[in-house]
Amino acid sequence: MAYDTSNVFARILRGEIPAHKVFEDEHTLAFMDVMPQSAGHTLVIPRVAAENLFDLPASALAATIASTQRVARAVKKAFDAPGIMIAQLNGREAGQSVFHVHFHIVPRYEGIDLRFHARDMADQAMLAEHAARVRAALD
Amino acid sequence: MAYDTSNVFARILRGEIPAHKVFEDEHTLAFMDVMPQSAGHTLVIPRVAAENLFDLPASALAATIASTQRVARAVKKAFDAPGIMIAQLNGREAGQSVFHVHFHIVPRYEGIDLRFHARDMADQAMLAEHAARVRAALD
Repeated sequence: MAYDTSNVFARILRGEIPAHKVFEDEHTLAFMDVMPQSAGHTLVIPRVAAENLFDLPASALAATIASTQRVARAVKKAFDAPGIMIAQLNGREAGQSVFHVHFHIVPRYEGIDLRFHARDMADQAMLAEHAARVRAALD
Repeated sequence: MAYDTSNVFARILRGEIPAHKVFEDEHTLAFMDVMPQSAGHTLVIPRVAAENLFDLPASALAATIASTQRVARAVKKAFDAPGIMIAQLNGREAGQSVFHVHFHIVPRYEGIDLRFHARDMADQAMLAEHAARVRAALD
């Protein structure tokens, strides 16, 4: 499948729609997931147009996982999360819903199940506050 | 928590216990998960002693994700999997059960749920055959 330049992450990268950004550098961007599976759920994407893991050039992949590690450390600290799940989904059958490759950083808390099925839009003010917490926790 | 050198992946790396290997290079090793969540479930680990994502040096992280991409491509091909989930769990609360950092490559098939809760040991002959299929599909 050819990369669809109208996908929501491409639009965020182009500045056409807003996002609660927590980190950006030359090759990557990180922002809060608007339908968080748990408090602090953050996404990391490469700037390069790539639909999935298989389309991602080696240098962009290395930059994306480096940013994921850095942001995940901040998310863990900001939310005092005992567990952190990294997930990266390729293809609709794997649950991919936005066709620009992205890494999920999902805090996990003892005894609290993920909101896998309740995919509701979160409150924007809460997301803005969460983004500020992650930014403050970045090394 | 200090790295526990008796964990099962450390023992596989030292050659003390067997594994159905599909790929190895200087920095990484890939092998079949013995309790697969779906047919073709493969793990990729760095050789360096690191409990989780946060303990992994940048160069080892880059090597591990590069091997993960390469092996995931082979798994997708070998199992004709329409979807591929990459997952990497940090901390018991996130579901980590072996405390050597590892990336899961989990094939996803339309309409087939993951065996998240039935963590049963798979048949060794089947795992050996699956490993051979992945090795044959490696570029």
